[in-house]
Amino acid sequence: MKRIRFNDDTNGLSGECLITELRQDPTTNEWVIIARERSKRPYDFVARKENESVPAFVEDCPFCPGNERLTPPEVAVYRRDLDPLNWAIRIVPNMYPALTPDDVVGGNLDDPHFRAMDGFGFHEVVIESPLHNQTLSTMDISDVNLILRAYQDRYRVLSKKANVKLIITFKNHGTTAGTSLFHPHSQIVAAPVVSNYVSQKRTVAKEYYEKKDRCLYCDINGWEVESRNRLVSETPKFIVFHPYASRYPFETWISPKTHNACFANICSEDMSELAEVLHKTIMKIDNVLGKPDFNYIVHTAPVRDENADFLHWYIQMVPRIWIAAGFEIGSGIYINTSIPEETAKFMIGHLHKSAR
Amino acid sequence: MKRIRFNDDTNGLSGECLITELRQDPTTNEWVIIARERSKRPYDFVARKENESVPAFVEDCPFCPGNERLTPPEVAVYRRDLDPLNWAIRIVPNMYPALTPDDVVGGNLDDPHFRAMDGFGFHEVVIESPLHNQTLSTMDISDVNLILRAYQDRYRVLSKKANVKLIITFKNHGTTAGTSLFHPHSQIVAAPVVSNYVSQKRTVAKEYYEKKDRCLYCDINGWEVESRNRLVSETPKFIVFHPYASRYPFETWISPKTHNACFANICSEDMSELAEVLHKTIMKIDNVLGKPDFNYIVHTAPVRDENADFLHWYIQMVPRIWIAAGFEIGSGIYINTSIPEETAKFMIGHLHKSAR
Repeated sequence: MKRIRFNDDTNGLSGECLITELRQDPTTNEWVIIARERSKRPYDFVARKENESVPAFVEDCPFCPGNERLTPPEVAVYRRDLDPLNWAIRIVPNMYPALTPDDVVGGNLDDPHFRAMDGFGFHEVVIESPLHNQTLSTMDISDVNLILRAYQDRYRVLSKKANVKLIITFKNHGTTAGTSLFHPHSQIVAAPVVSNYVSQKRTVAKEYYEKKDRCLYCDINGWEVESRNRLVSETPKFIVFHPYASRYPFETWISPKTHNACFANICSEDMSELAEVLHKTIMKIDNVLGKPDFNYIVHTAPVRDENADFLHWYIQMVPRIWIAAGFEIGSGIYINTSIPEETAKFMIGHLHKSAR
Repeated sequence: MKRIRFNDDTNGLSGECLITELRQDPTTNEWVIIARERSKRPYDFVARKENESVPAFVEDCPFCPGNERLTPPEVAVYRRDLDPLNWAIRIVPNMYPALTPDDVVGGNLDDPHFRAMDGFGFHEVVIESPLHNQTLSTMDISDVNLILRAYQDRYRVLSKKANVKLIITFKNHGTTAGTSLFHPHSQIVAAPVVSNYVSQKRTVAKEYYEKKDRCLYCDINGWEVESRNRLVSETPKFIVFHPYASRYPFETWISPKTHNACFANICSEDMSELAEVLHKTIMKIDNVLGKPDFNYIVHTAPVRDENADFLHWYIQMVPRIWIAAGFEIGSGIYINTSIPEETAKFMIGHLHKSAR
């Protein structure tokens, strides 16, 4: 990794300086360009905080209590007591599902040249709280724990359904992260295919295991703990770090130290610890970046790979402080304008301006 | 492809209706979910037009004439006459390059566990016009032609450089497409690696060729012309269509009818025709969608594959009327909320509201 300088002798340019490097993502084999513009130090990603006050109840919000009729009927509900109106979490089919159980898994539909199948699957919304203005960073850790347990319960139900091959649990927080609904919620999609992208990661992890007899992700965790270069935090059971070949600035992974391919396999003690880690990590991102929009994704093994030696579940958090442009769309190579080693240090308050 | 209905008997829901289907992209084998929300017909993507008046010259724009000192020295310049100040196109190194020729292609840098290389490569900016307020849809076709020829010239220069393996020419138009500079420009990145993504496309095309003895992209062009289902326009040498498994609403491909792996191989007559097709296609997108931000990418074979029988260059245009959310980031499967057959018909003015 080097600093470079334009040939400023020619025209008296002040010499823009940056650091650029190609890094290969060990989990996908895809390249990422790490090219921090000199002007973009980690603190330059901080958004201006808008102290908007959001009410706890919004009359026309379909996820607020009293408006339950505005969503499809619940597939699951978690309550605090016997009062049926006093729900803590509701899980409902998405009103605009990407995939639906009414469809049948079938082959080519009507085009002789192209491959398609009916949009079979499940698309559920986890309404995380009755309070409109709650977020994972403001709610109690026990509430976060219940959300994670709800994810786990839904995984167990959906993974038993015929033809379900991949379950993606994710959260879109904020408009730039892809949601127009403010009320705290996350989503679960159960798909009848394993995507190319997930297949590729599976192949990479399998090849690593066959060569080294060790889980790639367990090894990455070990390297991150050992070097501490990109480590954000560590608890008995989890590590939080900024991956070596992060595609996105401040991309943050939460990974279990103990090998486990499937999120739904977590025991309840570990889940409690995870709730605390997730809560704190979002709080940290909120504090450091000024409550950015973000996505998180629970990456977990494809269905029936739940006990694989070579796969490893983790949560990927992606603050939406980047835009994929023509280069990313066309090449699949992301340009990350920050350096994971720097952003991780910034997350833990260890970045000194003199490091410039 | 089916319409579905929620169990509206349970709670008197009015029955949200949509159409959902999984389609496999024949060029990548990746799945795409086509899930048009009932509320989203093609005309619902039309942005509100802001008739902002942009001046032809902006004093502090680094790309405006007279400010040439604000960019690194030109690597190429196209002029209309002998007046050195009267340039038509300037090509300069990017001030904030993702890759730079000063770096050396080298192996692992400093981490024993991860693979990296110096950020060697070229990153150039094509300043497309001296006029700040010009766009490809407002300029003369001869000017568009000159831009395409400049791309071609730069390809020929950059592809000869040692260690260059992949050249991506692209345009980011508008802030949501990833650029903060309004002045019309595009970019060329010459990289020392072939990305996974491009490799995968190469493998898919090669396997198709080995099985069928035909170019996959030539066949796709033939199918699109034959069915006309997704055809937007056709000229003697080119077709414009919305791909079967479009990841993005109104994604538009311009593809040569004659087999050709490499954009730089185009003869000058074809280039003139392409200039007209590109100009008209952007005009059409501007008209139909209300001048959206967009990206386009010139997809062309990796360096040294320029004469491959199984690869095919094309231009991909992507209006920025979508957001990749957690599901896309986590699964690699894009949810396209429009139907290519419908958007193509809308582009040519053949969509009737009764089709709902």
